[in-house]
Amino acid sequence: MSNCHSVGVVTPQRVAFDAPLLLKSGASLPSFELVYETYGELNAAGSNAVLVCHALSGSHHVAGTYGDDPKTAGWWDNLVGPGKPLDTDKFFVVGVNNLGGCYGSTGPLSTNPVTGRRYGADFPLVTVEDWVAAQARLADHLGVGAWAAVLGGSLGGMQALEWSLQFPERIRHALVIASAPKLSAQNIAFNEVARQAILSDPDFHQGHYVERGVVPVTGLRLARMIGHITYLSDDQMGEKFGRQLRHGERRFNYDVEFEVESYLRYQGDKFAGYFDANTYLMMTKALDYFDPAFDFDGNLDAALARAKANFFVASFSTDWRFSPARSREIVSALLHNRRRVAYAEIDCPAGHDSFLLDDAHYHALLRAYLENIAV
Amino acid sequence: MSNCHSVGVVTPQRVAFDAPLLLKSGASLPSFELVYETYGELNAAGSNAVLVCHALSGSHHVAGTYGDDPKTAGWWDNLVGPGKPLDTDKFFVVGVNNLGGCYGSTGPLSTNPVTGRRYGADFPLVTVEDWVAAQARLADHLGVGAWAAVLGGSLGGMQALEWSLQFPERIRHALVIASAPKLSAQNIAFNEVARQAILSDPDFHQGHYVERGVVPVTGLRLARMIGHITYLSDDQMGEKFGRQLRHGERRFNYDVEFEVESYLRYQGDKFAGYFDANTYLMMTKALDYFDPAFDFDGNLDAALARAKANFFVASFSTDWRFSPARSREIVSALLHNRRRVAYAEIDCPAGHDSFLLDDAHYHALLRAYLENIAV
Repeated sequence: MSNCHSVGVVTPQRVAFDAPLLLKSGASLPSFELVYETYGELNAAGSNAVLVCHALSGSHHVAGTYGDDPKTAGWWDNLVGPGKPLDTDKFFVVGVNNLGGCYGSTGPLSTNPVTGRRYGADFPLVTVEDWVAAQARLADHLGVGAWAAVLGGSLGGMQALEWSLQFPERIRHALVIASAPKLSAQNIAFNEVARQAILSDPDFHQGHYVERGVVPVTGLRLARMIGHITYLSDDQMGEKFGRQLRHGERRFNYDVEFEVESYLRYQGDKFAGYFDANTYLMMTKALDYFDPAFDFDGNLDAALARAKANFFVASFSTDWRFSPARSREIVSALLHNRRRVAYAEIDCPAGHDSFLLDDAHYHALLRAYLENIAV
Repeated sequence: MSNCHSVGVVTPQRVAFDAPLLLKSGASLPSFELVYETYGELNAAGSNAVLVCHALSGSHHVAGTYGDDPKTAGWWDNLVGPGKPLDTDKFFVVGVNNLGGCYGSTGPLSTNPVTGRRYGADFPLVTVEDWVAAQARLADHLGVGAWAAVLGGSLGGMQALEWSLQFPERIRHALVIASAPKLSAQNIAFNEVARQAILSDPDFHQGHYVERGVVPVTGLRLARMIGHITYLSDDQMGEKFGRQLRHGERRFNYDVEFEVESYLRYQGDKFAGYFDANTYLMMTKALDYFDPAFDFDGNLDAALARAKANFFVASFSTDWRFSPARSREIVSALLHNRRRVAYAEIDCPAGHDSFLLDDAHYHALLRAYLENIAV
């Protein structure tokens, strides 16, 4: 669109909550802070607010840039802005770094007010339910009674779904993209290997590595490499890299031979340079534990009976991490509860990561759905 | 079958070859030894010999037991024996530990005759082509002019295919099971993460860990965990473990929560206790490099034109490591060369590991094919 542009330069904000937060695990946080960004203006009725929930390695920085540096564009900048599918001329959009994150919200890198030392591994495990509870405090702070919409992809989609269950009166539309109602055994298995890579790194020091002045770089790097394989489709990897040789010939050693090896190492190294290992561990556990049907003997229909929102559910044909079949489980359970659901299965070669791309068909569907939300 | 039984107690044998072996990498081994087992009797015409090639972590111990301990049964004991599909009353069956292996054949654990020290990481990378060249020396030693059949699953299937190309006159039937004509980018990616886990283990010591009296247990364990996920199907993992909790309740910590985590840790620990890390690295590289079409501009039809054997190709419906589509590539190229091919796509829930199981339909097909081989 010629008239869609960036939200421009943005500045993160911070809010502190002093009332304790009781967590799903039974532990309690005495107080916490959340870092967030907003784009657009909240209208007088407070009816145009949209919460964007991030996935495993995302943050509150959804759109716009810091200063004029285009390299700092938010992770969903292609979706959010004036004239973009999530139009900030219409909506007041909020991005938040989840509790336990490593981008400024209270998490393992924060100081434990009780001990005066960094939390590190002592930071309690938080769940999708806890995130939503914390996000509700942010909504209160911002004067948002009910979100016009909550949306997210992957782990972010789980938060949108959880909003519809925990606060059915405070969400009008839930957009659940490239997600699943719970992880499969294989999903958990991949997370477990990633965790073991971090936990068994000698530099992990039972999660108190920061005090030792080190970072479990090796473990984080491996964890990211494993993750990356599951974010791309087999086809996409084939198209991107195939069996292309780095040096045009085989060298018969353990240096990079095939381009795909170079790509994975690069992704692993980059990630290990900025992401916190304790946060990574915790995010994978939040994924593992998410299971709204847990308290309903595995019956998802019963679990979703509480939901009152309208739903937009989308999946991608080549996503083998959370395949279309997983999205259809959500759709089926919602339909059994006579909820209104728009479901799209989008033909996109990019695997799980498709939800972050600006595939024309995908964005057109999001635009149409969001345009029809009354504010 | 009521009249099929074990080959009984078996004893590995050893043969030394003193002529140098020039390897694909350009390196050369001055001499080498192979450890092997045989079951059944070679007939006077030498026409009933079958070579069984092992996959990544297999060995020469294909069938029978060591002493009376049923726990030491060979890795394909369900297939090989009197009255079994690969009938040792009819065939003379040979299992061999490949060059570079860690079960007794010359490999990283062996002493380098030039330096008098263990090879460790100095053992040259060997390829599927090199294995077949070494196996041909074993055939000479055993008095086998041409194999009635060469068979194997996964990496073993690649060796069967390579036999048909390198020694078209010395193989009458190639049985290529759960295999592929080359790895995909995703296949290589999984291997690369496994290698990085080993290479980045502080106990790896550039591959000279044995001299230091340590083993890169952490890396090997992670490598095996990653591998294991790809050996099982998503469905099979779901059926075996689902989201079953180890302690019946969620404990919100990093100990084992879900049964699948326990399974993976167990498999990883077990493997790290007996397998050699340098061999593991090398086996994954042999997989990566295998690509008969490499010297034919990627044209598999042209690459397989040399083959004269008859083929049995089989794949498994739930194998996502080497999917049926990969087997069909081989079948298609063989048919373009007017070779005789029997192809079976077997409905089995067990993923890649299906080739090791005694699925009734699968074994019936193997039996029928092998029964029809004239000796």
